[in-house]
Amino acid sequence: MAVPARGFYLLGDRVSRMLAQGGSAVLPGVPGADRRVFRGFRSSGVRHDAIIISGTEMARQIQKEIQRGVESWISLGNRRPHLSIILVGDNPASHTYVRKKIRAASAVGICSEIVLKPKDVSQEELLDVTDQLNMDPSVSGILVQLPLPDHVDERTVCNGIAPEKDVDGFHIINIGRLCLDQHSLIPATASAVWEIIKRTGIETFGKNVVVAGRSKNVGMPIAMLLHTDGEHERPGGDATVTIAHRYTPKEQLKIHTQLADVIIVAAGMQNVKMSKSPPKHSGGRVKMATKSLIFLPLKSGLSVLLNPSGFCHCFTGRI
Amino acid sequence: MAVPARGFYLLGDRVSRMLAQGGSAVLPGVPGADRRVFRGFRSSGVRHDAIIISGTEMARQIQKEIQRGVESWISLGNRRPHLSIILVGDNPASHTYVRKKIRAASAVGICSEIVLKPKDVSQEELLDVTDQLNMDPSVSGILVQLPLPDHVDERTVCNGIAPEKDVDGFHIINIGRLCLDQHSLIPATASAVWEIIKRTGIETFGKNVVVAGRSKNVGMPIAMLLHTDGEHERPGGDATVTIAHRYTPKEQLKIHTQLADVIIVAAGMQNVKMSKSPPKHSGGRVKMATKSLIFLPLKSGLSVLLNPSGFCHCFTGRI
Repeated sequence: MAVPARGFYLLGDRVSRMLAQGGSAVLPGVPGADRRVFRGFRSSGVRHDAIIISGTEMARQIQKEIQRGVESWISLGNRRPHLSIILVGDNPASHTYVRKKIRAASAVGICSEIVLKPKDVSQEELLDVTDQLNMDPSVSGILVQLPLPDHVDERTVCNGIAPEKDVDGFHIINIGRLCLDQHSLIPATASAVWEIIKRTGIETFGKNVVVAGRSKNVGMPIAMLLHTDGEHERPGGDATVTIAHRYTPKEQLKIHTQLADVIIVAAGMQNVKMSKSPPKHSGGRVKMATKSLIFLPLKSGLSVLLNPSGFCHCFTGRI
Repeated sequence: MAVPARGFYLLGDRVSRMLAQGGSAVLPGVPGADRRVFRGFRSSGVRHDAIIISGTEMARQIQKEIQRGVESWISLGNRRPHLSIILVGDNPASHTYVRKKIRAASAVGICSEIVLKPKDVSQEELLDVTDQLNMDPSVSGILVQLPLPDHVDERTVCNGIAPEKDVDGFHIINIGRLCLDQHSLIPATASAVWEIIKRTGIETFGKNVVVAGRSKNVGMPIAMLLHTDGEHERPGGDATVTIAHRYTPKEQLKIHTQLADVIIVAAGMQNVKMSKSPPKHSGGRVKMATKSLIFLPLKSGLSVLLNPSGFCHCFTGRI
């Protein structure tokens, strides 16, 4: 049975977002600041200091919504969604990520299984696995935990998953659909950034957004979501988006971030100076250019800095 | 017989570029200006005035190169490339464009044919045509002249063409591959912009580029080509790219264009103020913000303004 888009959305688009952990977000507290930016989750404000937006709280909220969605889906007579995760080798980080995904799926009522393969598995065998899972009507979503061993071509394996079961949104057709503003399964981190922006009520229409990072799984899809037309099949943010990267000269990045209303730092830690502390600020105003570069406390290398009206929202939860 | 990438490149990537007509390009003349920007085509300079870069001349040069490529391809025992153009209805502009494409193909030694269908042709029938052409080994490239009648879904028909014969580069898989920096057939106008930049020797590495326009066939692929990694399978321009569009506030567009080293105006005429005159300048310097907005003398709605070192190159040929 083909699982319709809504089912996959539950599986793919939101599962990863549920993984938000220990998040905190800071924005300079302004007495009487615009409260519409705090919809549906707890926030605390400190006068002339950062307001903490709880990423954990936002994740819990989304988790509840997905749980309700899954139960509603099943109550309509549909099969319980089932996620198959292909895990290759014994990379400890990969095993940890997969355990968390399994736990997150379970918490919202999604069944899951791990298909474990040794690190010397051949590409052919992996493609046989994806073929079997593609054809299995009891499997509604498939995810291959990356990275794969060097002798396996990740792109080929990602393209081996049926696009409609491609929970990570890495299949070439899902990338194509995303870039054409069509409904698609969207890579999880980009989807999470979109959700944070929407749930915090930050305006992007006609605003300047800097996306620092151009990776195909994070920076590029974020830039796609934010610059595109809000009226299309898959609505975009209608922002003026600047895509910066390792070859953007430091002084130019400073100018671009000063111009920006929203800054999304989607660059790996190795490319940026890192600080575990929230950005310093004075009088509620933030020197965005500096902070966008140093404020990357997450292992995933992603944080979101939002700067409406000259003030700063910093989401620091892992997403 | 499958025609390898080079064959399709000849067919798809360059045929449209050969269509350059009556082009002219202006850049403020500077005595002793950097001559490396004029490789392989004629240019004329006027002191303290615009230097004209001849788009027609560049097109002729490319045409010669393709012609040599086709003959070399055939001399290796390959079949002469054959382009099939599907033309629906009696839209005079579409018929004119197709005639020009046929003429351009013929000029470089590419065979072509028109598959003409009435305007009330069904989508089903069009997909039957693409199926037949996909399977026909004598057809190396297929192009559907857009727009199609309202009752036909253009996206479905574009996706009906085999990706490896998709001369326009509109198939979802070619879009996906383009956005993942993989070899693909690239939409002609984006490819032409890339070629102009490369052939004029304009540096994009680490430079600020503004792409005004976010259409899926022009602005988006141009932004993709220019912001991405120069070391990937399909090399990109390594520029910091800002994607502006109809909702970019005028004063913000002015700031972005003032920051820009390269400005590419890929917006339809209806959205921008138009002037048939080259931009005014004084002392060899150009107020880019104003000019990038008003300098769109082409029916195709595309021109390229390049601004290295504070001076301005304007390519105005139709591409």
